[in-house]
Amino acid sequence: MTQFMDVHTGMKGITADQLSEAHRADLAIEAEEGVHFKSAWADPDSGVVYCLSEAPSAEAVQRIHERAGHPATEIHPVPLTV
Amino acid sequence: MTQFMDVHTGMKGITADQLSEAHRADLAIEAEEGVHFKSAWADPDSGVVYCLSEAPSAEAVQRIHERAGHPATEIHPVPLTV
Repeated sequence: MTQFMDVHTGMKGITADQLSEAHRADLAIEAEEGVHFKSAWADPDSGVVYCLSEAPSAEAVQRIHERAGHPATEIHPVPLTV
Repeated sequence: MTQFMDVHTGMKGITADQLSEAHRADLAIEAEEGVHFKSAWADPDSGVVYCLSEAPSAEAVQRIHERAGHPATEIHPVPLTV
């Protein structure tokens, strides 16, 4: 398992409830791809959302995000953490 | 205090030791601006580093990163977390 940070853009005006609902939609199906979404951080003004996960691949992360209705703009493996 | 996610680019080939040293350099002076750097995640292949902090402003975050020798490419307030 590798950690991934993915970035969503175009989410201007996202609310706390919408972020929670998007996260819940990911969690509901993440196990089907062996993914676990750990945390997400949103900037409603610029519409950027960062999402941290553990997953077998970036493609697995994207498949869950796509099925949940919010495909990522970019996904990076982040094997180094401090 | 607000949470911020900042992004550094151009760090291709960064090692675990270099990430730790960069984080230590931030921690050593962060209190002078009322900033606290919480965590950072690095992708050595693409050279992107994500850095999560609590701070009074984006400018305060940048001042610490600049003085520590690694200015951020972009800094976003992320008031929403899940």
